[in-house]
Amino acid sequence: MKTFKVGLIGAGFMAKAHSVAYAGMPMFFWPAPALIKKKLIADLTVERADEAALQFGFERGTADWRDIINDPDIDIVDICTPNDSHAEIAIAAAGAGKHIICEKPISRTLEEAKAMYEAVSKANVVNMLAFNYRMTPAVQLAKKYIDEGAIGDILDFRGTYLQDWSADPNSPLSWRFQKAVCGSGAFGDIGTHVVDMLRFLIGDFTEVNARFATYIKERPMQTGTVDNLGSVKGGTDVPKAPVDVDDQCLLVLKGANGSFGTIEATRNAWGRNNFITFEIHGTKGSLYFNYERRDELQVCFADDPGDRRGFRTVYTGPAHPYGENLWPIPALGIGYTETKIVEMYKFIDAVANGGRVSPDFEDGYRIEQLGDAAFRSAKSGSWETI
Amino acid sequence: MKTFKVGLIGAGFMAKAHSVAYAGMPMFFWPAPALIKKKLIADLTVERADEAALQFGFERGTADWRDIINDPDIDIVDICTPNDSHAEIAIAAAGAGKHIICEKPISRTLEEAKAMYEAVSKANVVNMLAFNYRMTPAVQLAKKYIDEGAIGDILDFRGTYLQDWSADPNSPLSWRFQKAVCGSGAFGDIGTHVVDMLRFLIGDFTEVNARFATYIKERPMQTGTVDNLGSVKGGTDVPKAPVDVDDQCLLVLKGANGSFGTIEATRNAWGRNNFITFEIHGTKGSLYFNYERRDELQVCFADDPGDRRGFRTVYTGPAHPYGENLWPIPALGIGYTETKIVEMYKFIDAVANGGRVSPDFEDGYRIEQLGDAAFRSAKSGSWETI
Amino acid sequence: MKTFKVGLIGAGFMAKAHSVAYAGMPMFFWPAPALIKKKLIADLTVERADEAALQFGFERGTADWRDIINDPDIDIVDICTPNDSHAEIAIAAAGAGKHIICEKPISRTLEEAKAMYEAVSKANVVNMLAFNYRMTPAVQLAKKYIDEGAIGDILDFRGTYLQDWSADPNSPLSWRFQKAVCGSGAFGDIGTHVVDMLRFLIGDFTEVNARFATYIKERPMQTGTVDNLGSVKGGTDVPKAPVDVDDQCLLVLKGANGSFGTIEATRNAWGRNNFITFEIHGTKGSLYFNYERRDELQVCFADDPGDRRGFRTVYTGPAHPYGENLWPIPALGIGYTETKIVEMYKFIDAVANGGRVSPDFEDGYRIEQLGDAAFRSAKSGSWETI
Amino acid sequence: MKTFKVGLIGAGFMAKAHSVAYAGMPMFFWPAPALIKKKLIADLTVERADEAALQFGFERGTADWRDIINDPDIDIVDICTPNDSHAEIAIAAAGAGKHIICEKPISRTLEEAKAMYEAVSKANVVNMLAFNYRMTPAVQLAKKYIDEGAIGDILDFRGTYLQDWSADPNSPLSWRFQKAVCGSGAFGDIGTHVVDMLRFLIGDFTEVNARFATYIKERPMQTGTVDNLGSVKGGTDVPKAPVDVDDQCLLVLKGANGSFGTIEATRNAWGRNNFITFEIHGTKGSLYFNYERRDELQVCFADDPGDRRGFRTVYTGPAHPYGENLWPIPALGIGYTETKIVEMYKFIDAVANGGRVSPDFEDGYRIEQLGDAAFRSAKSGSWETI
Repeated sequence: MKTFKVGLIGAGFMAKAHSVAYAGMPMFFWPAPALIKKKLIADLTVERADEAALQFGFERGTADWRDIINDPDIDIVDICTPNDSHAEIAIAAAGAGKHIICEKPISRTLEEAKAMYEAVSKANVVNMLAFNYRMTPAVQLAKKYIDEGAIGDILDFRGTYLQDWSADPNSPLSWRFQKAVCGSGAFGDIGTHVVDMLRFLIGDFTEVNARFATYIKERPMQTGTVDNLGSVKGGTDVPKAPVDVDDQCLLVLKGANGSFGTIEATRNAWGRNNFITFEIHGTKGSLYFNYERRDELQVCFADDPGDRRGFRTVYTGPAHPYGENLWPIPALGIGYTETKIVEMYKFIDAVANGGRVSPDFEDGYRIEQLGDAAFRSAKSGSWETI
Repeated sequence: MKTFKVGLIGAGFMAKAHSVAYAGMPMFFWPAPALIKKKLIADLTVERADEAALQFGFERGTADWRDIINDPDIDIVDICTPNDSHAEIAIAAAGAGKHIICEKPISRTLEEAKAMYEAVSKANVVNMLAFNYRMTPAVQLAKKYIDEGAIGDILDFRGTYLQDWSADPNSPLSWRFQKAVCGSGAFGDIGTHVVDMLRFLIGDFTEVNARFATYIKERPMQTGTVDNLGSVKGGTDVPKAPVDVDDQCLLVLKGANGSFGTIEATRNAWGRNNFITFEIHGTKGSLYFNYERRDELQVCFADDPGDRRGFRTVYTGPAHPYGENLWPIPALGIGYTETKIVEMYKFIDAVANGGRVSPDFEDGYRIEQLGDAAFRSAKSGSWETI
Repeated sequence: MKTFKVGLIGAGFMAKAHSVAYAGMPMFFWPAPALIKKKLIADLTVERADEAALQFGFERGTADWRDIINDPDIDIVDICTPNDSHAEIAIAAAGAGKHIICEKPISRTLEEAKAMYEAVSKANVVNMLAFNYRMTPAVQLAKKYIDEGAIGDILDFRGTYLQDWSADPNSPLSWRFQKAVCGSGAFGDIGTHVVDMLRFLIGDFTEVNARFATYIKERPMQTGTVDNLGSVKGGTDVPKAPVDVDDQCLLVLKGANGSFGTIEATRNAWGRNNFITFEIHGTKGSLYFNYERRDELQVCFADDPGDRRGFRTVYTGPAHPYGENLWPIPALGIGYTETKIVEMYKFIDAVANGGRVSPDFEDGYRIEQLGDAAFRSAKSGSWETI
Repeated sequence: MKTFKVGLIGAGFMAKAHSVAYAGMPMFFWPAPALIKKKLIADLTVERADEAALQFGFERGTADWRDIINDPDIDIVDICTPNDSHAEIAIAAAGAGKHIICEKPISRTLEEAKAMYEAVSKANVVNMLAFNYRMTPAVQLAKKYIDEGAIGDILDFRGTYLQDWSADPNSPLSWRFQKAVCGSGAFGDIGTHVVDMLRFLIGDFTEVNARFATYIKERPMQTGTVDNLGSVKGGTDVPKAPVDVDDQCLLVLKGANGSFGTIEATRNAWGRNNFITFEIHGTKGSLYFNYERRDELQVCFADDPGDRRGFRTVYTGPAHPYGENLWPIPALGIGYTETKIVEMYKFIDAVANGGRVSPDFEDGYRIEQLGDAAFRSAKSGSWETI
């Protein structure tokens, strides 16, 4: 059994998610495609990096992410930094022939995304973007139903990602509100997850008509770099700075398959937390999913007899995608960790056995193209080709 | 106590709904604004009209709706016919000085709506459009919360009306699929309910960007005039005829208050039955309603402490709008009948005591203007001013 | 078409429910088994009775319920009074050869129930107890599934009726808390509804083991006779009097079919309003119903393929029991009124066409026997035979 | 920072759960109470044990669990075997001064439980029983609300654990259906989880009245020792053997605090998967939890104004117990892994810092006493003192 060595860059909450996935992957997917050795983790100072190494189970830390790129022993570069460094790191990693898993969204701009996509294509390395929500077994089950034709031809769709962690005007100005770091706001941060999920389920989109809004024009500046996702409020005596990204986006989309629908994302929806949903209607049935209740998928089959037809609430388990690898009883519990373990399995499997993993940088680039068209549409007020 | 005499035109399912509302209104709203005498009901033949009179508790039937207009004894004309006769009847009734309650949508076209609005304005008669869903106590409670400022300024909204009764291609071509009779399809039939509800809750809209789709291009012709709403399928040997209205519509809207959002309506959403929903986010809270579970409103208040915040599921009862008039315990049961009784109370109260009732023909006309702009937008591909 | 004349005794909220049912029955069930003439209504004073006549559409009022018994013109006696007068009125009505519909529970005591049952048996009059909740189409659908064998042999069941209208200690001491008037508390008031529903669905019970609790030992006395069901609180300066009935009951039951399960009822469950639920497991499937969301029944069929199995949420409509008589689209709205209209149809149909209606006084008597055994069990601490 | 060395016995699905918890604990709870070194894992053959070591990240495997006991280097013995070996292993481990975490239920019999409790008491080692469901943040939040008095005095409760994995008669006779191995059926396997959860929330119980049922009297014998929890069916040509444990149990309980209620557990409830629920009513509010939707807790506060009262759906996150250690946004996803990581943290914290962890062997023993009383009650048909 092969062993791959990993260097991870960034030591925030995503480093935790990836680290538990490295540990859990072979436990859940056995025989594993390979074993993992967590070698090097990079953070801003060596002290913090060494502490992160202890916490996340790496051999040691470094204050210079280029140590990871330059280490010939390292097979995999894992990018868990804010969006502004994705391109530089990924292009360097590809240049060094490393396989790459990178947190979403791919980058700040279309140009960066294109360069990243070209770099990994040229280097011919396995590359993955960490849109983990599509790894949820219930989403995979939706895909299976669609592929089996169980809901017929797709007519329409609507996807949402609603949160409220920054609805409070005192929620601080973290990097997620600074265009120079994040590229875009709700669209890039969370909207891209829904775009990825719907592209996975029903295919590409051809045209978009979009609207963006920034509700809270300035926020208290955040001291330090930690990203508390709204759980710590800015003090009242903290100076404020302007927000230059979107709090909310609404996209109307035409699918290449003739369908149409909407995607919306907001971080200002009080009472919604991680409300990633889709509802899809087809000629022979319908699907509904809500990640807040992620163990279940709702499906209605038109062919059911009229007196017994209705949405079925299917709890995913061994009879469903990845079910034999996860837990032996439905609803035992799919959490964020489990979605990350499935994601990591797919990545490591591609690294070990070859083949393209999905979603990869090309997907990320396509999503950036969609985003670019959406921002053009918001300016033009018209439909724009993606 | 006054007694008003009613003439009702049409003897289908809406005649049933209105008749039980006439009977129930004083029972629920006591002291009643007036008593009701159901005098005359019109249908296509005198036999059917007389039978309807017996069924619905009218004194007698007539095959000529003009008998109702011409009867000086009749105070109220109630229009429960398909859309193509609303204008002719309503204008005649207004001309005869009758108060009018008319089923929705107001008419087939903007021109008809305008003429109807002008006729009732000139005649100065009480006039109401039967958008009953806004009478649901939970919807009235949403309005109360908004008016009290409990959810702050409105940021965005989405409304839906999803059904599946005509998703089957063998569901017959009733009048609801013939533009000459109905004017429009899903938009007029059900979409207008959501437009009415959202106008009621958050005010007028200024611009629209819309898309319409007709999924099932032809359907088996329906024999007879009965409107079975999909519950009887057309035979396989029945000739088909083209559908010339929309199966689905999607409207993106800008609100006069700066908010924006979507309204969608479809009769091709398998598993959805009378799925009238809205979700509204404000600066201080959120609202969610689903008519399929109409005894309840979900509301989230931002001011709740962080460890106790979440959507509250409020079951409407005596503590809520119309609660003292309906049933003494929440969830005892709000049905279609109850919504119609509230509606009828508001109408009769205006007839008895004067004042404008809402929604009236002006509202209907405004909704037609919105629909007209939506159809223009679908053609132009651009935002259109309402 | 026959016409039956009705005399109704009592003018509270149940009189409203019955009156709208008389009016609505032929509108919904057409051709109707008979037409109804609401002749006489009795209340405590002639003024209030006359006002009730106007409100509920009766010809006139009376202060003496015996006027109804003695009127040879009256076919049907409708008993909407508190429990303490059921026996006297019903026995008199039976003696006069009237058909009887009586609100639940049948009586205060087993002796009264027995006498009532014997009186109607001897008189051979149609008799019905108004356990309306089993008339909900979703409950009727559950019965249909069970009768078709769709869930196999019944293994176990649990039924609940949870409310909170008297959870507040200041909720006044209405007749529902006085044993001399009501006979028992939560058991008779609401628990009997669940017993009726489960007897309807799965048959008779043979043994019971029960527990009762009275949480609020005294309450402010209520002035006047109006029963506000907790929506008006007693003032702080109102004298208190002891409660001598149960606030809550829990019954463990063995079914004649070998099944076992529980029934619980309480009026002290904060947040539950009219939470009438059942969950039934069989060898081939399961059922779940919650009256607070009464348009829907949840059913799971074991025979569904493993990757598509889960509870189906079936919204009742034309494809389901009474669907063609109620509303043409599922979820258009079943309310309390609709349940009462179905109930009234079944009663009038039996009066017109003969035959036993269910639930009748025999059912009421059987339920009292069960209640009697339950109270014996609470004393003995042991299983008691019903 | 200390490092503890672990020896784990058993290599089935629980070994996976514990192993990922060892890996994840310091990642989530940092600074960690200690680091963990997974040293030795025992399974039936050395080949399987070595493979398990590779899969779960242990240094090596052994075919003899006594190697773990006898290794002076090992601090912690983790027991993930079927119930019949818990006592022998635990008592040996205690004798060797090891700290112990043991899967639930504690043992097959009251005698074994007593011996285990006495052994750890005498050895004064940290000991924990892995009732992980109470570690769910929403359950911890329920406890917090109760402790704060937010729902007042507890009146009543009902807990359930409903599954369907063995509802199919072809689901094989694994060790979970053999009394000699498991001690009891649904009660021990799943009912004890609910007992633990309710003891945690509302305290001890004093009396019980119970009923047990075995619906499927014999099942196809299972080849091999793997426990597929119903996901693999027995072939039709496989010989059958009798089931000598309960498929279902129903317990009526009196709480030491004066409350009463029910606990039921079944593995024959079609459509229920891991349906661990509780509903608790107090004098000032109510709680409802369903593990199938484990990110949320429903709570109703009586003190809310009447027009705004209803169950709040609170999604647990940073503002709630363990929230800062888990994920930074509510509903990001609590899965089985996360519950096990919290559990492991509590155990390791006690090992590192001393103190009693809850639930421990004493709790397990108390639960066995309750179970013993329940089985006595089922025989006697009477209430039994616990």
